[in-house]
Amino acid sequence: MSGLVAGPTRLYGIIGDPIAQVRSPAVFNAAFRQSGFDAVLVPLHVPRDGFADTMRGLMRLGNLDGFMITIPHKQATMALVDEIRPRARRVGAINAVRREPDGRWTADMFDGLGFVLGLEKSGHKLAGRRVLLVGAGGAGSAIADAVAEAGAAAMTIFDLDRAKAERLASAIAEAYPGVAADCADAPEPAGHDLVVNATPMGMRPGDPLPVPPEHLTADMLVADVITKPEVSPLLEAARAKGCVTQIGRLMAEGQSAAVADFFGLTLDWSGVT
Amino acid sequence: MSGLVAGPTRLYGIIGDPIAQVRSPAVFNAAFRQSGFDAVLVPLHVPRDGFADTMRGLMRLGNLDGFMITIPHKQATMALVDEIRPRARRVGAINAVRREPDGRWTADMFDGLGFVLGLEKSGHKLAGRRVLLVGAGGAGSAIADAVAEAGAAAMTIFDLDRAKAERLASAIAEAYPGVAADCADAPEPAGHDLVVNATPMGMRPGDPLPVPPEHLTADMLVADVITKPEVSPLLEAARAKGCVTQIGRLMAEGQSAAVADFFGLTLDWSGVT
Repeated sequence: MSGLVAGPTRLYGIIGDPIAQVRSPAVFNAAFRQSGFDAVLVPLHVPRDGFADTMRGLMRLGNLDGFMITIPHKQATMALVDEIRPRARRVGAINAVRREPDGRWTADMFDGLGFVLGLEKSGHKLAGRRVLLVGAGGAGSAIADAVAEAGAAAMTIFDLDRAKAERLASAIAEAYPGVAADCADAPEPAGHDLVVNATPMGMRPGDPLPVPPEHLTADMLVADVITKPEVSPLLEAARAKGCVTQIGRLMAEGQSAAVADFFGLTLDWSGVT
Repeated sequence: MSGLVAGPTRLYGIIGDPIAQVRSPAVFNAAFRQSGFDAVLVPLHVPRDGFADTMRGLMRLGNLDGFMITIPHKQATMALVDEIRPRARRVGAINAVRREPDGRWTADMFDGLGFVLGLEKSGHKLAGRRVLLVGAGGAGSAIADAVAEAGAAAMTIFDLDRAKAERLASAIAEAYPGVAADCADAPEPAGHDLVVNATPMGMRPGDPLPVPPEHLTADMLVADVITKPEVSPLLEAARAKGCVTQIGRLMAEGQSAAVADFFGLTLDWSGVT
């Protein structure tokens, strides 16, 4: 019965509502098995209704060592933890929480770091880049912070909600004085060497492209957060223009690696996608 | 990654404090895998401190379909469920809880039924038996009720705490008027054809035997609830006297089958021990 969850198995979880669509359990459990590590990451369907009570109960479980957080709980969970690391405070959301040896719960945000790690794993450096970021929501905010921290030179932020883009640009400019951050009236790729889609546009057939593809040029690196389809319409258009592209799955893999590291786990990820 | 816990996997649990020693996760998860059923039964370490709050949180999880209960929570959980089936009310404890389609939680007690199912699987009928039951605690109470329900003719109950034995004998006599239930001053096998140890005696080296072995005769069936060691000192002594014996593991297997049935699961248990 090797590899099966048993009495001594340590627990990790991912909370969300809904939950069946999350990929983290399959990904982490494959890595746990491959690494011979007696732990399991289980999907925990935590409804919005009664959220805080449910979470306080879960966080009392003696064998729960940490959990990940997905929609819609990335903000609400912040009120329940003992410590929020600076990066997560800047972004205003958390996606992983761990139990410290003294029983306190520490939270951090790895969505942006996962994006940067994915790019770096593909051999792309962030230092000196001029970045166009489309989307100033949760994913966009996390990516903006991580890309700035990784040394981008300039960042133009576009969002259909201009006030949101303005707020994010101001926050980046304040936290990273070395990054020329601004918002724009249109998602114009010209003048940038990294174009990032951090919106859901491209998940549904018929979605408009997040940037005008005719303005993409072959010297641009184009990245997408979308994992379904594996190659988004934006990346297809970018490839047609000769651009190097970065698929969303590599960001997800970067997030998994960063979260495992935060949980103190040394896992073998080879072949796990 | 077949067989791994993933996003859609349904959750079952077992609550206890401590929890690492429980065998149900390994047993159920082997049966889930063998049956191709996408579910996992996870150990949930629920401390005594804050018990009700922790449980109310767990019971709000949308993908938790049921849970088992072990020491020390078999009584305390009764206050948290919506319905307790008659058998469990008689015994005064529950060991399994399931979520009904309407969201209500129903509890039942399968420790005694598991014992009876184990005997029946070994080809032993309970009808008409004259039973000596040693131990009137949680396991003893559940076994007394199930053995009486299965048609035992008479039951003698012994416990070092005589008042406990008296209470259990009275309860059995009241619930099952056809069963001649009484308590005794000594654990005397003579006059019985089924001898049951429902105490922990025999788990630790040097424990006294629960009945005087020299009074066992070859026509008696001798059963033990102890699973460690697999063959208890009482059963060793009984075998030396020519008795047919029933090991505790068969009771545990009967419990698993009964709980799975309660959970609405049709599982393949072949080879799962």
